[in-house]
Amino acid sequence: MKLIRIFFGESDQYDGKPLYKYILEFLRNEGIRGATVLRGISGYGENSIIHTTSIIRLSTDLPLVVEIVDTPEVIDALLPKLAQFMDYGGIITEENIRIIEKDE
Amino acid sequence: MKLIRIFFGESDQYDGKPLYKYILEFLRNEGIRGATVLRGISGYGENSIIHTTSIIRLSTDLPLVVEIVDTPEVIDALLPKLAQFMDYGGIITEENIRIIEKDE
Amino acid sequence: MKLIRIFFGESDQYDGKPLYKYILEFLRNEGIRGATVLRGISGYGENSIIHTTSIIRLSTDLPLVVEIVDTPEVIDALLPKLAQFMDYGGIITEENIRIIEKDE
Repeated sequence: MKLIRIFFGESDQYDGKPLYKYILEFLRNEGIRGATVLRGISGYGENSIIHTTSIIRLSTDLPLVVEIVDTPEVIDALLPKLAQFMDYGGIITEENIRIIEKDE
Repeated sequence: MKLIRIFFGESDQYDGKPLYKYILEFLRNEGIRGATVLRGISGYGENSIIHTTSIIRLSTDLPLVVEIVDTPEVIDALLPKLAQFMDYGGIITEENIRIIEKDE
Repeated sequence: MKLIRIFFGESDQYDGKPLYKYILEFLRNEGIRGATVLRGISGYGENSIIHTTSIIRLSTDLPLVVEIVDTPEVIDALLPKLAQFMDYGGIITEENIRIIEKDE
């Protein structure tokens, strides 16, 4: 299984709504089984190429992390579509994980 | 070392108390050295087979993630006992990590 | 790429300021591109050797997790300098991850 984590800022918007809400709707429409949105209490990062050019984002914009877990097949098909969110200054990471089955 | 993450909903209860409190007590009684509970600000997921059958859980129930780090031996002994929490609609994931020692 | 996660308590201080603020400043001065600070809603862990000796920390001190992602070269150079924060009862974990590039 794969864990995908999408990092961006709470103030990021897309199509007139908060980016994290847009991403959640996108993931549900894509049939992804579940998603979790975590909000950091502080942080910093490179700003998006949309907002400005390479200005360090200050901690007034709290970091968000959207996490999803699914099969490699589902994730690999999803990744090209996730690229649209990378204009918003965030990064997307992928790691291999294992889901614990009930009868182990 | 292994990182275990247990995903479920904030409204999940066990034995009359919030499930995350029950899990923390369980982990301490099992001798697990530490645990962290993160709460998401939004999310969605498959609902538990206890609550209903395969209805998508709406974001009114905020997602929780319990994280523990320990040796493979400790984790492997713990996993079968963790299975009891999987009736509550959550998933449990496992990843290999490394703990940074002080004198590296 | 590597993901580094630094776990400690919200009440930990260094040089008269909250440890997480000190760590964020340290990471920026070191040129680390981004960092995210997550706060748990509950948890427990081993207390620092500074504060007391091996008393279990109660959940009145909320857990913090500082996360950074960077290249192995940058992380490997950073890790010895991070050791100074490990006196504060926290642990530091490392995992291999992949950053999704835009044109995949």
